[in-house]
Amino acid sequence: MDIQKELQYKANEVDSIIVKYLPAEEGYQKTIMEAMNYSVMAGGKRLRPILMEETYKLFGGNSKALYPFMAAIEMIHTYSLVHDDLPAMDNDMLRRGNPTTHAKFGEAMGILAGDGLLNFAFETALKAFDVEDDKEKVIKSLKVLADKAGIYGMIGGQVVDIEEEKQNGISHNRINFLYEKKTACLIEASMMIGAILAGADDEKVKEVEEIGHNIGIAFQIEDDILDVEGDPKLMGKNAGSDEKNHKVTYVAFEGYEKSKEDVWKLTGEAVGILQGMPYQNRFLTALLYYLTARNS
Amino acid sequence: MDIQKELQYKANEVDSIIVKYLPAEEGYQKTIMEAMNYSVMAGGKRLRPILMEETYKLFGGNSKALYPFMAAIEMIHTYSLVHDDLPAMDNDMLRRGNPTTHAKFGEAMGILAGDGLLNFAFETALKAFDVEDDKEKVIKSLKVLADKAGIYGMIGGQVVDIEEEKQNGISHNRINFLYEKKTACLIEASMMIGAILAGADDEKVKEVEEIGHNIGIAFQIEDDILDVEGDPKLMGKNAGSDEKNHKVTYVAFEGYEKSKEDVWKLTGEAVGILQGMPYQNRFLTALLYYLTARNS
Repeated sequence: MDIQKELQYKANEVDSIIVKYLPAEEGYQKTIMEAMNYSVMAGGKRLRPILMEETYKLFGGNSKALYPFMAAIEMIHTYSLVHDDLPAMDNDMLRRGNPTTHAKFGEAMGILAGDGLLNFAFETALKAFDVEDDKEKVIKSLKVLADKAGIYGMIGGQVVDIEEEKQNGISHNRINFLYEKKTACLIEASMMIGAILAGADDEKVKEVEEIGHNIGIAFQIEDDILDVEGDPKLMGKNAGSDEKNHKVTYVAFEGYEKSKEDVWKLTGEAVGILQGMPYQNRFLTALLYYLTARNS
Repeated sequence: MDIQKELQYKANEVDSIIVKYLPAEEGYQKTIMEAMNYSVMAGGKRLRPILMEETYKLFGGNSKALYPFMAAIEMIHTYSLVHDDLPAMDNDMLRRGNPTTHAKFGEAMGILAGDGLLNFAFETALKAFDVEDDKEKVIKSLKVLADKAGIYGMIGGQVVDIEEEKQNGISHNRINFLYEKKTACLIEASMMIGAILAGADDEKVKEVEEIGHNIGIAFQIEDDILDVEGDPKLMGKNAGSDEKNHKVTYVAFEGYEKSKEDVWKLTGEAVGILQGMPYQNRFLTALLYYLTARNS
């Protein structure tokens, strides 16, 4: 299996789904639709929707409610990047080689486009009620989405990230918290929602959450490793940009070798849980390995 | 009936409900909880939750699902103020005599606290599923909340507001759009959710939406009128601040007399619809008049 080729293929499939949920660019407020659509279609890897769909397939999903949630999770991921890039946050003018949203549309529109995407993510996810008879599945999925994206999830991680930049120092526990919240929570949500909508029971959803947790943290550590060793052309941003922002990373804390080891340990545990499931999804297993051993 | 006294009493009651839904200030990310709670408890009039509850009473509501939505609508209103006050938006350092959220907690935390409140509003509203057996009522209410707060509602109004400041000119249609979206939509949502949760049918919910629409626009025009004629001490912000921000208001467009007339016309229509309902709520009727003829 050529995982990179498959991932690209699946990312294109996800794009064709997401695009149907994006707002038409019309009305007096059409600038915000343009800014939102620009941000979402700026060429992400679509890992979260792909993980959602693959977990869904793992449990033999056959509900119609998956698509709105695939779009919603990507909107939430995108809004977090848009706000993260703002001058008062990381102050980035480029992302994946293109102007960031605020660089292109102005700072006020960067704030509003992020707000718009977060709100629209919930509007979109709520459409799942229109196509799924089992309302409980949708309710559970909405609760996971809101919880993992919020102050006890992703936003909570952002807060610690921003505060560390000011404080110039971070404890081991805080860096674990940061990686768990800022990166792992949305990965967990993606996989959990896939499982829930496919009808997995609470125990299995819990196991899926653990997989997402491990993979999310390993993914973020691998990001740090790449920042140290990476080829700028492969990375799409300048290597060493974390150092520029005075961010203390897991690698700076634990050292390069230990970080590499931890990535493999976390990934191994995740794959172990996955292989203990009564069902299998070969692509998902390969994806978990790939995510934590990629070179871009 | 001393409406101001009653309103203050009801605002205190709302506060005692809302406060139960606010996050505990704890964990590595506790700064954001502090910033969110500071923003929500900075002393608003709580008009939206009050309108929600009074409309609910109008239709004889007896569901338990109202409280999470009362808290949620106030969180959404609050986040919109927090982001509106940011340097890239209206750049306000004071609100109701206190430092704005970004003035007190820094710009990055102002952005994140707004995001946190918007996300937490949905987390909070989703709790209604735990206390309401009729899931359809909650689903309908969630859809109204998300729609009226988003790019086709309040955020859409914000976009036009921000763009007008840059463009230094506004058409009559655009100013109507702005007032309808930026101010009326959340008022509509408040009243509609009250009606839906109380079991009102679609036709009645539509009528309630019209009432909210008229009252919201009248309320915003009255705000402009007060900005021209108001006593700074009563207003709590500097009179003439709209002029400072180069905002073209309804009053500047239509003139003072016509604006006054329109406020009364819109209010009269709203009260007319309300009095055509099979039920009555004397306080709600008085409130509609008061909102559009207040002096602060």
